[in-house]
Amino acid sequence: MCSLTMPAFCHFGFAAAVAWEAGKPLVIEEVEVAPPQKMEVRVKILFNSLCHTDVNFWEAKGQNPLFPRILGHEAGGIVEGVGEGVKELVPGDHVLPVFTGECKECAHCKSEESNVCDLLRINTDRGVMIHDGKSRFSKEGKPIYHFVGTSTFSEYTVVHVGCLAKINPLAPLDKVCVLSCGISTGFGATLNVAKPVKGSTVAVFGLGAVGLAAAEGARVSGASRIIGVDLNPNKFEQAKQFGVTEFVNPKDYNRPVQEVIAEMTDGGVDRSVECTAHIDAMISAFECVHDGWGVAVLVGAPSKDAVFKTHPVNFLNGRTLKGTTFGNYKPRSDIPGVVEKYMNKELELEKFITHEVPFAEINKALDYMLEGESIRCIIRMEH
Amino acid sequence: MCSLTMPAFCHFGFAAAVAWEAGKPLVIEEVEVAPPQKMEVRVKILFNSLCHTDVNFWEAKGQNPLFPRILGHEAGGIVEGVGEGVKELVPGDHVLPVFTGECKECAHCKSEESNVCDLLRINTDRGVMIHDGKSRFSKEGKPIYHFVGTSTFSEYTVVHVGCLAKINPLAPLDKVCVLSCGISTGFGATLNVAKPVKGSTVAVFGLGAVGLAAAEGARVSGASRIIGVDLNPNKFEQAKQFGVTEFVNPKDYNRPVQEVIAEMTDGGVDRSVECTAHIDAMISAFECVHDGWGVAVLVGAPSKDAVFKTHPVNFLNGRTLKGTTFGNYKPRSDIPGVVEKYMNKELELEKFITHEVPFAEINKALDYMLEGESIRCIIRMEH
Repeated sequence: MCSLTMPAFCHFGFAAAVAWEAGKPLVIEEVEVAPPQKMEVRVKILFNSLCHTDVNFWEAKGQNPLFPRILGHEAGGIVEGVGEGVKELVPGDHVLPVFTGECKECAHCKSEESNVCDLLRINTDRGVMIHDGKSRFSKEGKPIYHFVGTSTFSEYTVVHVGCLAKINPLAPLDKVCVLSCGISTGFGATLNVAKPVKGSTVAVFGLGAVGLAAAEGARVSGASRIIGVDLNPNKFEQAKQFGVTEFVNPKDYNRPVQEVIAEMTDGGVDRSVECTAHIDAMISAFECVHDGWGVAVLVGAPSKDAVFKTHPVNFLNGRTLKGTTFGNYKPRSDIPGVVEKYMNKELELEKFITHEVPFAEINKALDYMLEGESIRCIIRMEH
Repeated sequence: MCSLTMPAFCHFGFAAAVAWEAGKPLVIEEVEVAPPQKMEVRVKILFNSLCHTDVNFWEAKGQNPLFPRILGHEAGGIVEGVGEGVKELVPGDHVLPVFTGECKECAHCKSEESNVCDLLRINTDRGVMIHDGKSRFSKEGKPIYHFVGTSTFSEYTVVHVGCLAKINPLAPLDKVCVLSCGISTGFGATLNVAKPVKGSTVAVFGLGAVGLAAAEGARVSGASRIIGVDLNPNKFEQAKQFGVTEFVNPKDYNRPVQEVIAEMTDGGVDRSVECTAHIDAMISAFECVHDGWGVAVLVGAPSKDAVFKTHPVNFLNGRTLKGTTFGNYKPRSDIPGVVEKYMNKELELEKFITHEVPFAEINKALDYMLEGESIRCIIRMEH
């Protein structure tokens, strides 16, 4: 490992897990990490947490393949140094990198409602930095692509300042790193978008980390019934910890699950949150909400060729369909407050963390995810 | 005409316009009108206003044919007498019949958000009264079907008390009768559901009465730009009176109108209201709203086989799709207040009324509508 100190930046000698091709085990390599350019920050990553989106882009099924690439986007680290124009962060600040950003200048950032920044919203096809269209990672002179502006499967990474949430330095990074994607996504979808009132009935489709975080949001909101929907019956026991009170496995019925839920709830749930990203589940999640007042929220990112279909009378009867990215949180403005919710014990994070591996064993984290064993597996970057 | 007075009810000798078969001119007939039964009210209708929905069910294209039938649902009248259990109305009260009701007891009526009453929501296939499954209209002993619980193309009609809004007796019924369907539907869709803030951009699809009322709602809300979308270029000049500032005719472009609107508005409008009931327009109305914060509201009632289709990422990017019936107004609780808005000159109604005919010439009103000449044609019931 490089031993130069700030403000000079060492270019080489950092360990990163490189995805050389789709679906092949990540390889820990020594890579060069260039200094941060204008509005960029170089961050020493201390902890990663594996998110399913990393696995999707590693498998590259239904996604544009872009290799070699350094994946990783749910992480916590410390600012090592900043590029030109960066005023909000200084070396030593604790940060969570986020796959979508907040420039604070565009119409979205100025809107109270939107969090899909014009400049820094998620772009899964871009493997380079915005400033100069180049990668900051290379090995033997050959560039390695970035992933969603974060590429945290590396001891050091370079991130646009707008994609870094500065958080309370007392917050344990090995816990709050899970807030940099999945948990905030599900929790915010319920709290900020579905907004169930106390006593509501809420259905959550998909009981992975995002769905469990959506259930946690419903629990915190005081929902009276939280119906978990998943094809894997093993998930219910675990889901109870997150407030899920009932479980529906669509495989157990020979009619659409929205009909089953409507029967269970005298016409439909007050709110539903869709976290599977499967188009059929999206349609069910919409059609299972009560007419007159029901609100469904889509969270799972769909495949490129997915088509949402429903009869428009389902809207005319007073249902609402919304969608959200990253729980409608603005990364820089809002995530520090979500970290505080954890610090104040309003939000529990420990129960999401089921596994932990050292960086050298990062492929084990992928295995746990693929086998459905883990909710979140923390990857310790330090030896 | 019958000359008996209350409390005895005359059964016969009232003029009604009967639709004997689909698309054939209405025939003014002497019909018998039975007394109101439990929770029913008999109303002397003074003014009708022709709404496109009457024409749709008269033509019965894409709708279940149900003949002979007395159409009519946008009207104003005076209570003649009440049946058992009716406590809120007495003879002499001025009322607007409404095609959807408010029982005040179901979960929808008790909800602040919903107006689709479980008992009395619109049912276009039911041609009889709820109480006993029978019609109150007959000719020579043969029943004539009701239409949406109102059947106002008759000197007297029988309506469930939950479908009658008691209004200020000083309000001129020949004006405020237009609030009993179309104008409230469009105005409320904007004010109660789309809720544009001052300075917003709003697109309105369809510049018939409902669309113009939606535009009026946008104007009253202080929208900065109101974009009218219609296939008929003659509608723009008239639409200017309702606050429409720009006009888009989808026929003038060889690309989807949502793209045209997005270009005009730097990414999309803040709100859109769909009043054509055509499925392609519904999709365009949704896809033309700005990502991050845009809200589209479906108002037009779709055909039975319509399928709403869109890519789910349009939701994930922060768009919302809602729908509404009758502008989300609860007929009994809210419509008296809308009448007051007219009385206070907050809402202009005169500009919606372009034609007037005596009852004997009711078929002229249908012609004006079919030829696209009228916004609203008032039908005077008295000679």
